[in-house]
Amino acid sequence: MLKVGIIGASGYTGAELARILATHPKVKLTVATSRQYAGQKLSDVFPSLYKRVDLVCENLAVEELASRADFFFTAVPHKTAMGIVPQLLAAGKKVVDLSADYRIRDQKVYEKWYQSHSSPELLKEAVYGLPELYREEIKGARLVANPGCYPTSVILALNPILRAGLIEAGTIVIDSKSGASGAGRSASVANLYCELADSFRAYKVGGKHRHIPEIEQELSLAAGGPVRVTFTPHLLPISRGILSTIYATLTPEGAKADLFALYNKTYKKEPFVRILEPGKQPATQNVRGSNCCDIGFERDRRTGRLVLTSVIDNIGKGASGQAVQNMNLMQGFAEKAGLAGTAFFP
Amino acid sequence: MLKVGIIGASGYTGAELARILATHPKVKLTVATSRQYAGQKLSDVFPSLYKRVDLVCENLAVEELASRADFFFTAVPHKTAMGIVPQLLAAGKKVVDLSADYRIRDQKVYEKWYQSHSSPELLKEAVYGLPELYREEIKGARLVANPGCYPTSVILALNPILRAGLIEAGTIVIDSKSGASGAGRSASVANLYCELADSFRAYKVGGKHRHIPEIEQELSLAAGGPVRVTFTPHLLPISRGILSTIYATLTPEGAKADLFALYNKTYKKEPFVRILEPGKQPATQNVRGSNCCDIGFERDRRTGRLVLTSVIDNIGKGASGQAVQNMNLMQGFAEKAGLAGTAFFP
Amino acid sequence: MLKVGIIGASGYTGAELARILATHPKVKLTVATSRQYAGQKLSDVFPSLYKRVDLVCENLAVEELASRADFFFTAVPHKTAMGIVPQLLAAGKKVVDLSADYRIRDQKVYEKWYQSHSSPELLKEAVYGLPELYREEIKGARLVANPGCYPTSVILALNPILRAGLIEAGTIVIDSKSGASGAGRSASVANLYCELADSFRAYKVGGKHRHIPEIEQELSLAAGGPVRVTFTPHLLPISRGILSTIYATLTPEGAKADLFALYNKTYKKEPFVRILEPGKQPATQNVRGSNCCDIGFERDRRTGRLVLTSVIDNIGKGASGQAVQNMNLMQGFAEKAGLAGTAFFP
Amino acid sequence: MLKVGIIGASGYTGAELARILATHPKVKLTVATSRQYAGQKLSDVFPSLYKRVDLVCENLAVEELASRADFFFTAVPHKTAMGIVPQLLAAGKKVVDLSADYRIRDQKVYEKWYQSHSSPELLKEAVYGLPELYREEIKGARLVANPGCYPTSVILALNPILRAGLIEAGTIVIDSKSGASGAGRSASVANLYCELADSFRAYKVGGKHRHIPEIEQELSLAAGGPVRVTFTPHLLPISRGILSTIYATLTPEGAKADLFALYNKTYKKEPFVRILEPGKQPATQNVRGSNCCDIGFERDRRTGRLVLTSVIDNIGKGASGQAVQNMNLMQGFAEKAGLAGTAFFP
Repeated sequence: MLKVGIIGASGYTGAELARILATHPKVKLTVATSRQYAGQKLSDVFPSLYKRVDLVCENLAVEELASRADFFFTAVPHKTAMGIVPQLLAAGKKVVDLSADYRIRDQKVYEKWYQSHSSPELLKEAVYGLPELYREEIKGARLVANPGCYPTSVILALNPILRAGLIEAGTIVIDSKSGASGAGRSASVANLYCELADSFRAYKVGGKHRHIPEIEQELSLAAGGPVRVTFTPHLLPISRGILSTIYATLTPEGAKADLFALYNKTYKKEPFVRILEPGKQPATQNVRGSNCCDIGFERDRRTGRLVLTSVIDNIGKGASGQAVQNMNLMQGFAEKAGLAGTAFFP
Repeated sequence: MLKVGIIGASGYTGAELARILATHPKVKLTVATSRQYAGQKLSDVFPSLYKRVDLVCENLAVEELASRADFFFTAVPHKTAMGIVPQLLAAGKKVVDLSADYRIRDQKVYEKWYQSHSSPELLKEAVYGLPELYREEIKGARLVANPGCYPTSVILALNPILRAGLIEAGTIVIDSKSGASGAGRSASVANLYCELADSFRAYKVGGKHRHIPEIEQELSLAAGGPVRVTFTPHLLPISRGILSTIYATLTPEGAKADLFALYNKTYKKEPFVRILEPGKQPATQNVRGSNCCDIGFERDRRTGRLVLTSVIDNIGKGASGQAVQNMNLMQGFAEKAGLAGTAFFP
Repeated sequence: MLKVGIIGASGYTGAELARILATHPKVKLTVATSRQYAGQKLSDVFPSLYKRVDLVCENLAVEELASRADFFFTAVPHKTAMGIVPQLLAAGKKVVDLSADYRIRDQKVYEKWYQSHSSPELLKEAVYGLPELYREEIKGARLVANPGCYPTSVILALNPILRAGLIEAGTIVIDSKSGASGAGRSASVANLYCELADSFRAYKVGGKHRHIPEIEQELSLAAGGPVRVTFTPHLLPISRGILSTIYATLTPEGAKADLFALYNKTYKKEPFVRILEPGKQPATQNVRGSNCCDIGFERDRRTGRLVLTSVIDNIGKGASGQAVQNMNLMQGFAEKAGLAGTAFFP
Repeated sequence: MLKVGIIGASGYTGAELARILATHPKVKLTVATSRQYAGQKLSDVFPSLYKRVDLVCENLAVEELASRADFFFTAVPHKTAMGIVPQLLAAGKKVVDLSADYRIRDQKVYEKWYQSHSSPELLKEAVYGLPELYREEIKGARLVANPGCYPTSVILALNPILRAGLIEAGTIVIDSKSGASGAGRSASVANLYCELADSFRAYKVGGKHRHIPEIEQELSLAAGGPVRVTFTPHLLPISRGILSTIYATLTPEGAKADLFALYNKTYKKEPFVRILEPGKQPATQNVRGSNCCDIGFERDRRTGRLVLTSVIDNIGKGASGQAVQNMNLMQGFAEKAGLAGTAFFP
């Protein structure tokens, strides 16, 4: 059994990692850290884990951590992650980092959207952890930068059509909606039940969300040239789930292409990407608690636009599920190990 | 007191009409019809009205109805409405029709999206009941076609900027999200609690929703030329509320314009349109139960697009509230009569 | 117009007071205090009030407050209230206190459940603000102690049958369920959307909730002797609403009595208490946003128990609505002024 | 691999069975029936199963069914079940029946609460499928009557203390709250999203719910004498989950007993019953999607009552999860096979 540690176990992605790892056939969760809850049982922080995960949250220095596990998930905020990851690597550990710190390949871009980077040398080594695009690189990586939730839903939907050159890249508009777990588990008035329930709003409107450079980086690689997008995130009154509705103008060739065939072929062997049959639309409910990404699409023949819809569970395929998928690849485990569960409905 | 009737009182818009009229200072609700619930008290259908509205649902021929009230709200499905409205007008009554039957000015367009029209002569007479655009015409109307919910949210947001010619009309993308009351009160599996709660999906993707011709009719009038839009509706797990996120490329002039000033000036005297201060974003929660439309906007300077966000209560300003506002204008009542209530929060 | 102030305007009960007062025909809201949001517009704290309530939150000493209004609602936590109320009274103001500080008549009981009382002399003067029980006393009061939310739902349901002596007082079990607004608007992990949505739990189980002495005080007065109850509060994933399910063994006389007649007679003239017809059950949805209390009941003939069910909006009749009703009585306004609105549905 | 069939696969319990069986290591789902959806893929009925369960719904006679699988779950309404189960048994199949048809041992009681029974001879053979009480009998059974959802939550909570004789059996009051999936997946106005969301109500108040005889049957066996309870079900605005709050007066001995020790000892080896530590309370969220039952308790020393709180997922341990647990026992599989998953949170 691989000994695994979660650094930053008391957030929602930490809870989901613990849930998945609790029944993973190849790993043993041996250490969980949390500054805030140090000394408390993890199952006191998350009572769903009672009698399922028997660990006490600890607040450990990286050196101590290194002796406790061989593989780490860093589920801490950006900036905090880059203070930990280099030491873990230096100690010979493998890491899936769920923060944004190693997702952006270009240090300047990272520093423009975030802050200065303290281990830029690792940006080249880190592999962007979207298995559908970088499976082979992930298999050989020491450090995988687990993608952001919005980018996962967007890149999986746009990559095939951008590669095929069937849309005009300058016309992409992305309207994304996320469940509240994406906002994290910190005490705040803005995320109280009464502030979100029975409501809906946009936020960071006008090109301000930090997932934009990550989205554009990967879309540009797919398109073979710079791509800029308008991206608007919204906050849904649900706990788990992202739906991205993506608009782009089809090229004349794209207007005639068999898009279902294109997508089906691209993702045929993927265990976690499901291309919906023409006429069907995805719903967040159908991927909740799973590692699936469901993609639907329609042409708007009146306006010549393609409308892609893509759903994931933001803390599943959008965070912890994908992180475990990456670990499976890095360790040579079966890719679906621990992730075979079907979405629960209702 | 004006004697008022609701035809089709057992749906959600009927319930909201009854709620508003119950405390309206100038009217008395004298008749409510429902085929399905004929013979039952309206307060048995909607227990919130118990001891507040004392009427029994009836199933009456139009001739009988005409003797019972002087003003009618027809809250029945399209096609049904056009079987009732001409007779009510012939009997000398005034009507606000909440169906789609008299919203589309061009018979051909109506018949393309709906079905054949049995009283096309009234299409010319009917006034599109958006007071912010057609206040004077409404005041003199016998028949007001109450706008659709999505169109209300979209037209109020886009009209000022289209009139000013500051966006490229061919670039408009509308991503709308509606609460479940918009789906009506018929028994169906698709709208069960368990099918919608904790979920989110798009529907009628690809230019199929019947509100499109209505939106395009009014946007084209504002732009002074034909406008086509891509419009995608989504279903939110909330009861009341619509948020439309609207994208369009700014003209060079638009990129420099003071949009806040433009919108503020346009809607300065409007009692129900609230232009949010720069940097603020609307939420459905802030208009729930009210007749308000809140509009926010941001420029995405990276891509040159404008992003408008507009919220209404879909059965308030999007249906019954607006219907009462229209009645107030048609009858010479204070425009805010019965509609002064502030949104309830939380 | 009566000049009215809200002390502690930034909580949910403050928001609801502002909402109700915004359309109250006899009052003008002239001052709103908040330590946390001092200097911010109240409509920035609660955007639903934008262009409806034009006040800036202030942090004022009581002396300053006294010059700004003639009637005050103290919507601050217990203990804080008793530091303000005596000064307001001394300045000749009338006060409805929404805290628990003046609800308990017996200083010892208060001090056992809360903490030491700094103005015990006012306990005798303060009137318990349940108009259905103490209407005449409220009319003449300077200081009204607005009842707790749970107690309101419980006392209105049990008072008639206890007065009639038809249940065995020692057998009362109260199982209450409250919406999340009852937990207040402070930043906390426990009340985040993700912690409450799609979940349900009990809290303060086993006779620990501070509303118990208040409930027992009033039930004992009704019964003419000491009454002890088992009371269990629960947290519902809704914003507004309390439902109390109340169990008690009927006396032999009670088993034969016409309870519907008893309740109907008791509350016949009450504007805000609605006794449901036999066979009907109340729902929180039917009182949401209103000042109503709906009461249903059934006998369990197999076990000889009465089952009462009582619903209110916890920040309506359970807090701010009732506070305005009390103000109306204290000022000689129409009792329904500002409170005529019917519950919104859906 | 055991070939398994689901009869009545298109309801919520059918969906949950399919979800669990999809990853069960010892079985293969070979047939799924549905009258309403015959001819449609099960994954069209439940898109969460897309590319996970590859079956078409069929409408088959029992004889045909018998050739398709060796083990059956009957997830059809009561009365329908008794028309199918005897034939399946006659064909040599084993059956877990999720309906009420074989839960009540006394034919007269069954017929009083339901309707006449067409295979009363099987009532004696059928084993009540609560493994914590009847594990050995289940192992040898051909026909297991899967318990009702409410009874599961109640019986697991009350059985240890009734057996120990520490409460007065005549004082039991059960206040239960269930999520909406318990109401099934039929089209109905009462269960529409807008009718349940942001609301709460009781139903079948006063000793009318059909789970009462089932509860009383098992409690009476535990107590060693007839037990009658007052039971009130309520409808929660959540999809999954039941919380039962149970009140009973402690005997003098019970008042002194170490209840935590008693419960802990009783359920020590149970894989799915979790006794919470003193001071902790269960939440439906912590068992959602799992097969767990969490039990908490407090004494109300002021009134001498015990307050038990018990949560399950109503379609997990309350239906389909428990059905699979029973199958595991009947087939000699590991009891946790397919059921090891931890509740998802949030």
